[in-house]
Amino acid sequence: MTIGVYGLGRFGSFWASQLSSRFTVIAATRNPARETPPGVRRVDLAELGRAHTVFLCVAISALEAALERLVPYLSESTIVIDTCSVKRYPVEVMLRLVPEPIEVLGTHPMFGPDSARTGMHGLPLILTEARASADTYNRWRSRFLELGLRVVEMSADQHDHEAAYTQGVTHVIGRVLKELDLNESRIGTLGYQKILDVIEQTCNDPYQLFLDLQRFNPYTAEMRDSLMHSITKIIRDLSEY
Amino acid sequence: MTIGVYGLGRFGSFWASQLSSRFTVIAATRNPARETPPGVRRVDLAELGRAHTVFLCVAISALEAALERLVPYLSESTIVIDTCSVKRYPVEVMLRLVPEPIEVLGTHPMFGPDSARTGMHGLPLILTEARASADTYNRWRSRFLELGLRVVEMSADQHDHEAAYTQGVTHVIGRVLKELDLNESRIGTLGYQKILDVIEQTCNDPYQLFLDLQRFNPYTAEMRDSLMHSITKIIRDLSEY
Repeated sequence: MTIGVYGLGRFGSFWASQLSSRFTVIAATRNPARETPPGVRRVDLAELGRAHTVFLCVAISALEAALERLVPYLSESTIVIDTCSVKRYPVEVMLRLVPEPIEVLGTHPMFGPDSARTGMHGLPLILTEARASADTYNRWRSRFLELGLRVVEMSADQHDHEAAYTQGVTHVIGRVLKELDLNESRIGTLGYQKILDVIEQTCNDPYQLFLDLQRFNPYTAEMRDSLMHSITKIIRDLSEY
Repeated sequence: MTIGVYGLGRFGSFWASQLSSRFTVIAATRNPARETPPGVRRVDLAELGRAHTVFLCVAISALEAALERLVPYLSESTIVIDTCSVKRYPVEVMLRLVPEPIEVLGTHPMFGPDSARTGMHGLPLILTEARASADTYNRWRSRFLELGLRVVEMSADQHDHEAAYTQGVTHVIGRVLKELDLNESRIGTLGYQKILDVIEQTCNDPYQLFLDLQRFNPYTAEMRDSLMHSITKIIRDLSEY
């Protein structure tokens, strides 16, 4: 079984490597400077489009353009699966641009080369139905489980709502605190250490990913409004006290 | 050597108990309903004022009134030490209300009954010179070290500046996030878990302590302005993107 990976950025390269332990993996990318990971064969879009399944591993903001390039080469039996950190937007784009009867699934692998350094066992992967038969859905669910992943099934809408109030809020707080230029302190409490950890864990990701996660998740605007409302209230209470 | 504790709230009661392992401890409180910890003798202010040293263990906002009640009973040789979580304000109040030649020191024991459940070894205590001889300062420094504490020496101003940008910011963030009513999630990341930890660790403290820490630290207003500026900038950047 040949699995295709489209995009060889940090996540695509990592994901292609991981899949190559169980599958024949081919990969394509627009960027000729990208290295091909060991055990993966570099191909053109024509060959990629004939794979059993193609994983889209491009930035959220690049998804639409990437799909437009790929779609002409897709065979009718190929399954298309995205790996974006939001789910409503990519599922909507795939359903719109990928013609029937090609099957489509959404995933959000909640890990990367850093968190999977010691293996993928128990790491969470969100699985979202988009336009696939029960058979296709269940087979991919089983394959993810066989890779050691913890599969969490939810709708694209449920994912984005929950993600806005978990990763979304965490990343906004991390970026906000980063601006304050906080430092280690001899009088830092345990809570303060956790604040420093949040900054480190969120600000190591590229700023573009932060922007994309906020922009392409329809619930983050509401989350940011709540955050702004809350901070305004707390600070007003303090000045009135 | 008899040590006095004024105030038998949560911290005062805990601190009196801890001191009783090495000293004769007497305690006074305005509140007749407070229990006297085992090993501690309840006294009136007249007797408390004659102790070798009196630790003030009252709320920051109650410090001035408490000192006004205590001062008439202080003997000239008694040393007065506060235990407030800010330092400039209580040092200023003590210097103003406690007459010379009575010696005065500031401390901020950065722990309480929760963090010291398994002992005080290695817990930090901030020590601030106010109006004490080098001999008095060094003796109390040694006594704190003998209790197993990690003594951190800094000026009241340095303490408050550093505390505003460590505990101060942590508590504001904790209170702000508490308002969002965040919950455990199947898709919570490690960073999100730390956010939940910050909420728990800050919001378990009484709201009055939060208000006092913000109000009586002269640097927290500037910290809150920076925080507001930063969140406004981040959110505006997102809406313009």
